[in-house]
Amino acid sequence: MIDELPFTLDALRRAYAEGLEPRDVVTEAFWRLAIASDPGIFIHEARDSALAAADALGAPDGRPLWGIPFVVKDNIDVAGMPTTAACPDFAYLADRDAFVVARLREAGAIVLGKTNLDQFATGLVGVRTPWPVPRNPIDPTIVPGGSSSGSAVAVARGIACFSLGTDTAGSGRVPAALNSIVGLKPTLGAYSATGVVPACRTLDTISVFALTVADAWEIHAVASGLDPADAWSRAIPAGGLFDASAVRIGVPDEASLETFGDAVQAASFRATVERLRTNGATIRELDFAPFYDVARMLYEGAWLAERVAAVGSRLTEKPETLHPTTRSILEPGLKLSAVDAFEGFYRLKALRRDCEALLSGVDALCVPTIPTFVTLDEIAADPIGPNARLGTYTNFVNLLDLCGIAVPVGARADGRPGSVTLLAAAGRDALCASIAASVEAGALGATGWVRPSPPTLVPAPAAGEIALAVCGAHMSGLPLNRELTERGGRFIRACSTAPAYRLHALAGGPPFRPGLVRQARGAAIELEVWALPKERFGDFVAGIPAPLGIGTVELEDGATVKGFLCEAAGLAGAADITEFGGWRAYLARPASSKTEAAA
Amino acid sequence: MIDELPFTLDALRRAYAEGLEPRDVVTEAFWRLAIASDPGIFIHEARDSALAAADALGAPDGRPLWGIPFVVKDNIDVAGMPTTAACPDFAYLADRDAFVVARLREAGAIVLGKTNLDQFATGLVGVRTPWPVPRNPIDPTIVPGGSSSGSAVAVARGIACFSLGTDTAGSGRVPAALNSIVGLKPTLGAYSATGVVPACRTLDTISVFALTVADAWEIHAVASGLDPADAWSRAIPAGGLFDASAVRIGVPDEASLETFGDAVQAASFRATVERLRTNGATIRELDFAPFYDVARMLYEGAWLAERVAAVGSRLTEKPETLHPTTRSILEPGLKLSAVDAFEGFYRLKALRRDCEALLSGVDALCVPTIPTFVTLDEIAADPIGPNARLGTYTNFVNLLDLCGIAVPVGARADGRPGSVTLLAAAGRDALCASIAASVEAGALGATGWVRPSPPTLVPAPAAGEIALAVCGAHMSGLPLNRELTERGGRFIRACSTAPAYRLHALAGGPPFRPGLVRQARGAAIELEVWALPKERFGDFVAGIPAPLGIGTVELEDGATVKGFLCEAAGLAGAADITEFGGWRAYLARPASSKTEAAA
Repeated sequence: MIDELPFTLDALRRAYAEGLEPRDVVTEAFWRLAIASDPGIFIHEARDSALAAADALGAPDGRPLWGIPFVVKDNIDVAGMPTTAACPDFAYLADRDAFVVARLREAGAIVLGKTNLDQFATGLVGVRTPWPVPRNPIDPTIVPGGSSSGSAVAVARGIACFSLGTDTAGSGRVPAALNSIVGLKPTLGAYSATGVVPACRTLDTISVFALTVADAWEIHAVASGLDPADAWSRAIPAGGLFDASAVRIGVPDEASLETFGDAVQAASFRATVERLRTNGATIRELDFAPFYDVARMLYEGAWLAERVAAVGSRLTEKPETLHPTTRSILEPGLKLSAVDAFEGFYRLKALRRDCEALLSGVDALCVPTIPTFVTLDEIAADPIGPNARLGTYTNFVNLLDLCGIAVPVGARADGRPGSVTLLAAAGRDALCASIAASVEAGALGATGWVRPSPPTLVPAPAAGEIALAVCGAHMSGLPLNRELTERGGRFIRACSTAPAYRLHALAGGPPFRPGLVRQARGAAIELEVWALPKERFGDFVAGIPAPLGIGTVELEDGATVKGFLCEAAGLAGAADITEFGGWRAYLARPASSKTEAAA
Repeated sequence: MIDELPFTLDALRRAYAEGLEPRDVVTEAFWRLAIASDPGIFIHEARDSALAAADALGAPDGRPLWGIPFVVKDNIDVAGMPTTAACPDFAYLADRDAFVVARLREAGAIVLGKTNLDQFATGLVGVRTPWPVPRNPIDPTIVPGGSSSGSAVAVARGIACFSLGTDTAGSGRVPAALNSIVGLKPTLGAYSATGVVPACRTLDTISVFALTVADAWEIHAVASGLDPADAWSRAIPAGGLFDASAVRIGVPDEASLETFGDAVQAASFRATVERLRTNGATIRELDFAPFYDVARMLYEGAWLAERVAAVGSRLTEKPETLHPTTRSILEPGLKLSAVDAFEGFYRLKALRRDCEALLSGVDALCVPTIPTFVTLDEIAADPIGPNARLGTYTNFVNLLDLCGIAVPVGARADGRPGSVTLLAAAGRDALCASIAASVEAGALGATGWVRPSPPTLVPAPAAGEIALAVCGAHMSGLPLNRELTERGGRFIRACSTAPAYRLHALAGGPPFRPGLVRQARGAAIELEVWALPKERFGDFVAGIPAPLGIGTVELEDGATVKGFLCEAAGLAGAADITEFGGWRAYLARPASSKTEAAA
């Protein structure tokens, strides 16, 4: 019975509601570990303390993660357990939980143990460890992925419902692709770094692995939160998932889609892009060269020195305690000068502008999580090159302060797991996860369990947000849209007003502006509904010039939202453009009609 | 006649209106320079090109700086003039204007030449130059201040109406204090750095010197603006000055006020703080230790490497081309490693949190611009120590991304110029300048000119607040007023709209509501202006039911504020009550007229 129980949040909760005991879940988890017969997954198994924690839970009490088993990458502190960062000489006994671990345990989750990793979280392959290398549960000839190798495999095998990894260069995403699971890399600072062994302190974050987007998102909501003790911590409200089908998604264009010759991977990616398009997304093909330029800076530039700073004097005084590959990667960092560091920042600053220009035209990016697979043989022959290739679509992400989520999209033509990553500007975690939920498919890791039906998502603003109807230059892709996106606004849906409005092209400009006015003999006018964080709404409204303002707009379905309206007194010199049905259609009108409408 | 003409914007404009020619102003400027008999002010005098520019202006054309003479620190490019950064071997002929210089010239201003500085803008004293040291025009025994020495002295002597400096550690503020003038250091990125020789690229900004806050603010409005070519450039709207008397101002507490034993300076500072308090400010005494900790990082930490990066190979290959003091300061930067750099960022990040906690309780800071004076003898005896002391209240500012303005506050008890600096979070430049305008006093540099009366400023919301005009049940004492007060709203003033509105009693209620609509044949309607915290504004707007909304309302004095307006389509069944002149008068109407008006 319990040996068939999927360790997803829903299934576990239902089983608990029917009388299952947390102790039985812990016992089953370790039974599954025994069956896996893989000594590389855990660095520290904590069966006894997990059973004790299970017994201490008492009766179900409504806490969001009551009785949910999880594992923790061994560069994150769990009180009473050793933290090794996969370097035995580095090991210390943690006397308190990392901030995020404490939040999860307070929510009722149970720690099963600490998992293996590429030493000091430096690597994307999972083989750079003095412990046995975790086996990839889907295909034992390929690498498990890293650096969060054990955390990914534990979820892919159904041992833990979810796990914590960390992600600097892609360690929370690459293993997700290699294990057919979800890897959520939040906005930097959304999860506290208190109690985490740093890799690159300015670029590190804890990440979450789970079997489904819905599960990952529930963990995200518990794990995220401001920590006054962590100078990098930021308050990033989680919000809810929503129907994000009608978004603009940037993808690498034909010339810049890099799969190192893996045509199957390219085909799998293109198929997912087609699904997004079919779902309603606008796909924009972008030249990804600026992103790749940024990606190269992570290991070839100044940031290598952060990794050196993280291991401290070990590199010069006890180099023999480091994994030979880790050592060979870190050593060049010793030679970098502070001038090199600043020249790196200058270059990043300039590249960042180029990337922002690309990002400004889309709501999110979709990329293959990995360009192709890496076998154990390949990485044995060359410990560096294949690892670097795995970071093609991940290395630039934290340098650009993007958030992201890797999601399985079903098996490729050759049976290997397909995976894409959705990326967006900091704070848009919910947008990424919402898009990811619309394409997730295929195997739940290596479990063989049936994928649960996806959650029904409604297009709505979350608590703490205000819905705002925009009908002019604030719409997606138009010049003032950044006034919304810069304030954390997110696209909800495109629709129309009730048939009771007239649209005018106001005199003056640029920027050219429409004026929406409610009138008895009106028509349905196209608009977009955006959600704006409540606390940024005032700032937005304060910047709206006369004759425009914010009133209440009635939508086609009878709902009302706040939205742009125009004072009737401001229509002097304006042209009634109601016949176009919307601002976009008016802007796209044939040249011949331009003078007429302006008349 | 012209030799008595104050070179302030107002006086110059009045003189031009009466027929004065720009050529005469240029001639007079160079006459004043000749009288000053100070070969240290200019590195490059551009009399001929200034005369040509004056002649090319033609007739007054309404441009904001038409015919206004200014000088440019010689680390900022002016097309056709050499840029030296006070290093003869570094000199090059600029082939185009720096972005900011171009904006000023497009606005009609005339460049008189390039001014002396501490070499590569490294210093706060003004003596680190191979050119003659500019003389302090107020007291020849004290240093002129730097690094923008020549720019400050040119304004203090009335040679230029304003000047451009740069400010990394305080080079735009310290010379202002030493010359009894205004030094405006904008938010980083508000002025483009295109065409500026870097000192610390991540911390540099152009700055403005002028005789009065009002003049500096007008220059600021022209100089600021987004430059797509500069990766650090930010769009920071200038806005207008306002009556900011009721703000919360943080000052160093008794224990952390540092004047190096200069009791006169401490007394001058305390007197200014008392003026602020008398004007209505809430004064909060803060322990400034975290700010001093940040200040020390600028020359003792990683940022020294930015200065090394800025001079490039010169430091190692042609060290003899550097001023000996500059060289001795920069050389330790060669030894800093990239690890040192990152460890500096980590420390700054942590200190920044502490500073932000202090800043969160106030709207602005007020500090002495300099802790005490430095004589030429002192700096000759010790070229480093007295310079470092001058940065006590300036070095931390750019590292914390604050904006600031140094302002003369009248002579100290010993006759030396008193000066304070107002500081606030990025983007609050208008707040700083507005507070500064409320305390500016004393001599206009060394000119002997009479200080013009300060501009009349109207109360406006503080930074972080939005002004809102309410004309109905939200006014003081009426039923919905608590919706403002519960959100931290505060009363600003009672006034009327421009005579262009009609007021209606809307159908329905209670609560009974008026509808204000702009209309050609309107009247002045009474209203109240309130200030609402920005982050609560959205929540307030979200609760406003149709047909009411928030638009822009024009007030009797021509100012505009956000305020309640009514959709014309919502007037069905409403009574026009414009004749009452306001909602209060309507509510207080005799009983006999109540049925009529409601009819």
